[in-house]
Amino acid sequence: GDAAAGRKKAVACQACHGLDGVSKLPDAPNLSGQVEPYLVKALGEFRDGTRRNEVMSVAAKDLTDSDIADLAAYYSSIQIDVVPPS
Amino acid sequence: GDAAAGRKKAVACQACHGLDGVSKLPDAPNLSGQVEPYLVKALGEFRDGTRRNEVMSVAAKDLTDSDIADLAAYYSSIQIDVVPPS
Repeated sequence: GDAAAGRKKAVACQACHGLDGVSKLPDAPNLSGQVEPYLVKALGEFRDGTRRNEVMSVAAKDLTDSDIADLAAYYSSIQIDVVPPS
Repeated sequence: GDAAAGRKKAVACQACHGLDGVSKLPDAPNLSGQVEPYLVKALGEFRDGTRRNEVMSVAAKDLTDSDIADLAAYYSSIQIDVVPPS
């Protein structure tokens, strides 16, 4: 996937997930730095109906494989630093 | 949920998700700092079969509501710093 292309496509995601991947809604997960293959799988499952969500089933319906790859590349590329629990 | 109790219960999650919520497998999402209501919803959906995954459908099957609340409290409590894309 092409992270730069994904960033442009992520305008469609930002109302819920943020352009930086920080969720704006209680039901929407953070996507920043998320595992890339997990994101590809999640979007593919929303697209094909294996996984259902009122918003995502619609949002993912018309994504191409390239869209999914680019969005996953973009959100996974955002750096996160995890403060390990002590 | 009780994050301290969740940390103890998270030993069951750590092989895939890490005790710090940093994924150890390409198919497992990071959970560190994830949105708490999203985690509660995800675990509930795996438990009731709304959402299916080979590993998680088994892992969540016998969780109580308290287990779910505690695990969500724990993983959501782990601090993450997001480096905003420039």
